[in-house]
Amino acid sequence: MSSGIEGDCHRQLMELIASRQPGWGLPRELYLQDLVYESELERIWREDWLLVGHTCEFPEPGDYLTFSVDQDSIVVIRGDDSVARAFYNFCRHRGTLLCDQATGHVGRVVCPYHQWTFARDGHLVSCRGMHDDVDRGELSLLSAHVQEVEGLVFVSLAKGQPPDFEPMRIACGPLLKPQGFSRAKVAKVVEYEVPANWKIVWENNRECYHCNVGHPQYIRANFDHYNADDATPAIRQRIADAVARSETKWAAAGLAVSHTQTGMCPFPSPGPHGWFAANRTALTEGYVSETMDGKQKAPLMGDYPDADVGTLRIRTMPNFWNHSSCDHGVSTRLLPAGKSQTNIRVTWLVEGNAQEGHDYQLADIMPFWQLTSEQDWELCRKVQQGVSSSRYRPGPFSTYKEYNVDAFVTWCLQRLAGDGTGGEQQGGAI
Amino acid sequence: MSSGIEGDCHRQLMELIASRQPGWGLPRELYLQDLVYESELERIWREDWLLVGHTCEFPEPGDYLTFSVDQDSIVVIRGDDSVARAFYNFCRHRGTLLCDQATGHVGRVVCPYHQWTFARDGHLVSCRGMHDDVDRGELSLLSAHVQEVEGLVFVSLAKGQPPDFEPMRIACGPLLKPQGFSRAKVAKVVEYEVPANWKIVWENNRECYHCNVGHPQYIRANFDHYNADDATPAIRQRIADAVARSETKWAAAGLAVSHTQTGMCPFPSPGPHGWFAANRTALTEGYVSETMDGKQKAPLMGDYPDADVGTLRIRTMPNFWNHSSCDHGVSTRLLPAGKSQTNIRVTWLVEGNAQEGHDYQLADIMPFWQLTSEQDWELCRKVQQGVSSSRYRPGPFSTYKEYNVDAFVTWCLQRLAGDGTGGEQQGGAI
Amino acid sequence: MSSGIEGDCHRQLMELIASRQPGWGLPRELYLQDLVYESELERIWREDWLLVGHTCEFPEPGDYLTFSVDQDSIVVIRGDDSVARAFYNFCRHRGTLLCDQATGHVGRVVCPYHQWTFARDGHLVSCRGMHDDVDRGELSLLSAHVQEVEGLVFVSLAKGQPPDFEPMRIACGPLLKPQGFSRAKVAKVVEYEVPANWKIVWENNRECYHCNVGHPQYIRANFDHYNADDATPAIRQRIADAVARSETKWAAAGLAVSHTQTGMCPFPSPGPHGWFAANRTALTEGYVSETMDGKQKAPLMGDYPDADVGTLRIRTMPNFWNHSSCDHGVSTRLLPAGKSQTNIRVTWLVEGNAQEGHDYQLADIMPFWQLTSEQDWELCRKVQQGVSSSRYRPGPFSTYKEYNVDAFVTWCLQRLAGDGTGGEQQGGAI
Repeated sequence: MSSGIEGDCHRQLMELIASRQPGWGLPRELYLQDLVYESELERIWREDWLLVGHTCEFPEPGDYLTFSVDQDSIVVIRGDDSVARAFYNFCRHRGTLLCDQATGHVGRVVCPYHQWTFARDGHLVSCRGMHDDVDRGELSLLSAHVQEVEGLVFVSLAKGQPPDFEPMRIACGPLLKPQGFSRAKVAKVVEYEVPANWKIVWENNRECYHCNVGHPQYIRANFDHYNADDATPAIRQRIADAVARSETKWAAAGLAVSHTQTGMCPFPSPGPHGWFAANRTALTEGYVSETMDGKQKAPLMGDYPDADVGTLRIRTMPNFWNHSSCDHGVSTRLLPAGKSQTNIRVTWLVEGNAQEGHDYQLADIMPFWQLTSEQDWELCRKVQQGVSSSRYRPGPFSTYKEYNVDAFVTWCLQRLAGDGTGGEQQGGAI
Repeated sequence: MSSGIEGDCHRQLMELIASRQPGWGLPRELYLQDLVYESELERIWREDWLLVGHTCEFPEPGDYLTFSVDQDSIVVIRGDDSVARAFYNFCRHRGTLLCDQATGHVGRVVCPYHQWTFARDGHLVSCRGMHDDVDRGELSLLSAHVQEVEGLVFVSLAKGQPPDFEPMRIACGPLLKPQGFSRAKVAKVVEYEVPANWKIVWENNRECYHCNVGHPQYIRANFDHYNADDATPAIRQRIADAVARSETKWAAAGLAVSHTQTGMCPFPSPGPHGWFAANRTALTEGYVSETMDGKQKAPLMGDYPDADVGTLRIRTMPNFWNHSSCDHGVSTRLLPAGKSQTNIRVTWLVEGNAQEGHDYQLADIMPFWQLTSEQDWELCRKVQQGVSSSRYRPGPFSTYKEYNVDAFVTWCLQRLAGDGTGGEQQGGAI
Repeated sequence: MSSGIEGDCHRQLMELIASRQPGWGLPRELYLQDLVYESELERIWREDWLLVGHTCEFPEPGDYLTFSVDQDSIVVIRGDDSVARAFYNFCRHRGTLLCDQATGHVGRVVCPYHQWTFARDGHLVSCRGMHDDVDRGELSLLSAHVQEVEGLVFVSLAKGQPPDFEPMRIACGPLLKPQGFSRAKVAKVVEYEVPANWKIVWENNRECYHCNVGHPQYIRANFDHYNADDATPAIRQRIADAVARSETKWAAAGLAVSHTQTGMCPFPSPGPHGWFAANRTALTEGYVSETMDGKQKAPLMGDYPDADVGTLRIRTMPNFWNHSSCDHGVSTRLLPAGKSQTNIRVTWLVEGNAQEGHDYQLADIMPFWQLTSEQDWELCRKVQQGVSSSRYRPGPFSTYKEYNVDAFVTWCLQRLAGDGTGGEQQGGAI
């Protein structure tokens, strides 16, 4: 309420940010203080583009999906014009939660309390019982920004201009296209409440240093866990062979491997376009899908002519990554639910006309990423416990293996400090 | 601890109160801030008269009932002189909770820890083991104020003089008398923990705008949901007929309908006597009780000569409403248990000598109000979720249908600001 | 972050401390305020010697036990040299919790995340994957102080010099020795989460005023509940007889009763050596063990030549008491888990080579202290409820029976104020 208090909070935040030693982890206060969490909500989560789901989850006019960022429930509704629009999921009359399913369908949005009725584009179309001089034009649902790209749906809660989405669409759209998400279907959703700060989940995701022991399934299919320090000539040859194989087969189809190095590609990056990245990555010999035995387990998705297409990978700050194989894709969506709780939804997608039990079995396509995910959540839980210690102090990041953890931490601090990709900060100039 | 901090808090509170736009809902901070909740406890809940139960719940000397206002447990004990007295339910020695049942019976109040013993009037009568110069006279139980009126029991936790109770007794006593609560019995108690701020529960109670869709049972028996905007001539005629019928039958018995208009009677009102209201209201044709089919389901209560007596309604700020029919009454008691939790107890009462299974069935008398109550709690839960949104902003109240929500909100803000009915504020002058 | 805020907090704390009336209980804020709890963690729990377990729980090199003080998880590991060492239980790389069992065994401490490996003495011995210029010497586990005395294990989290342990070893060691804890075994552990502030648990422990009614089992075996006000000549004679019996039998064996008065021996005391006390106490006629019927139920422990040795009692501030009979010992360990939750672990110990089912039955040795403990936890729960009342005010302590509650409260306030036994405060001079 008082700008003096806000000034004091900003100063505290800046001191905390400045207290981080480059190349080392975050000071414990960055995980534990209310001030930091509230600032992250304001400067990151209510500003940046959030992956909220897939086009195929609400394909028809009137279909909707809901999600929550901390205490903010949002509903995304497909309009009569098939355009997805996002609204704060409360009635403009008394504040009642409007849509209370994860996904559903509405003719119009009718408030369960007094039946105020909103069109699918958010306009108030009826509020029977109100007096005549109520200004209906001022009582539309509050909107948020939406972008769809090749079957992925993003929302920004920015009050002003959100970050420019076009660079992401231009960079990632062509890579996404052959996967065919927009005509996919959801095979399964699993939701997790992980008792860890959302940054701990990302730090876990941004390195494969822990894969060797932590992810016995994952490392059989992938090369990510090899880095400059431990990629032997034999391993480099295996990667080169996989890349060459893909070039031979896919060059014409635009499916060539774009990530050709050891380790993980650098992500995120500072600056306005550093929040997204996508690439096609080779799998190990004998693996055509991220399944337990590497074999194709469901019909080919999208435009793929052949099972041997490696994996498509996409990730966007602050809440999304996806690994997709020839026959299925797996999206992981993070949403903060408190400073030490992250709600995580993992979604398995398959080709739209595939029939469970006939064309694929959940038991074939799920274990690889379900195991890998749950192995990670358990590690995150233990990190949260450790950083909560009154004596916790950060350690150094491996320059070989944790360059992306460092990049993530740096990105967060820039955003927290008010720099970076935010629409409000950058004005119109990109 | 510091009056400077208190001063700063008071200023914040006054700014919040001033930020409300007349005729519109409360700003979200009024539901979410600790400062507001603590101020409500201090200025409303620990000051005003609270309905705590019924005389028939603890009729005999030594009978007691307990209740909690936030962290304050209170015990109300009937003394040897049959007068009910209220005490803070902790021992004056080490603070131990004394009576830990909802209702019970004690010879004397014996602390379970060191057996300090208090008479039913709160005086310390024994503290064996203490040294001689302990001043026993200073160690009585801390008392609160009690009033009983026609079978209803009220407590005020005011440190000074509580609000004057006599105007309530004079206004409501004669209306309550024929219902005969003081010789009734409890047929059933159901307790709810509703995840909503207590004001949201009241706002829900103070309008029948939501009844049409929200309460399919309730609207068959009642006229409340018709207002100036939608009461057709036919409906006004039905109300007039019901009122006339009551005048014909009851005028002599003092049971005439006192609420003769459409909609709900205005409540609460500003000023020292605005916290209570009671009336007799007509039911629809064919309904003699608020039961599923409108038929009498239990023996006539109190002094009623006939089943066709409409309903008696009473409500008192900040925590009570009751609808009573010829054959049963239903009391709803609210108690705050945190800024977003309200503990609600619904009590069904019948004539004192009625035998369950013989004279009445719970399945006949409970569903009407159990359904109506639970329909409301679910709506309240959804409103709490909506107002918790970081972008929540209040909407306008219908002047036709939500005049009592506006009245309630106005009452709250006056009490929060330190105006209104409080005993301390008004000195001795009423 | 700002010394100004700390200064303000210190002033608030000092005002609270000063507000306590001598001989009366603590003001409610001392149980309820975050500031107080945080100060207790800093000035007591992260400074003083804490009983954490028994030598026999982790006897071999590589054996470990863990415990938590609020958010600080600590692991105590027996080294290759059989010396117990304590470490903050988080990896120096990313903070991961290292050992997640209550007790266990490790070759080396291998972090589950990236397999950084620490020797049993805490040194970082491997961090494969890190770049070369990481200063491994600076990345040992953070250590805490450990002392073992006759089978009991103590840890201090003091950042500087912990309180001097030698006076405790000198005073209590000889008393402890014949009990033989270092070669005992754990018969059973029961853990409790008690919803009460840790000080309420101690206040309960520091008087037997509540024993007469609260502990029907305990008082059959003991004389503690008799004080100057109620120890009749007959009772004094019974105590004198018990003491004389012990002198006759045990004088030569060094097992003579050292507590020869009515009531409990004074504890704690102000000053640097006031945090520990031990004595041998007579049991009532016919009782040779704190069991339900007073009979020996398990093989003699340690060096005892005979069952009739009374009980050995030891207690240390802020978290430990133990009552040991000829055939078993019972240790109670408190650990704070929030301002209104205390985690309590009760451990039953027997002679190391005794076989359950053959030499003893749990059903014989457990009930006496399990009942007594659980009776106390229930009382503590009720006190927590009472002191949480907005109107709670402390009462007077009985000078006959609650002198040790007063001593405890005084000790706490001294420690909170920064006086007392702390190593940092006393410099090198003892």
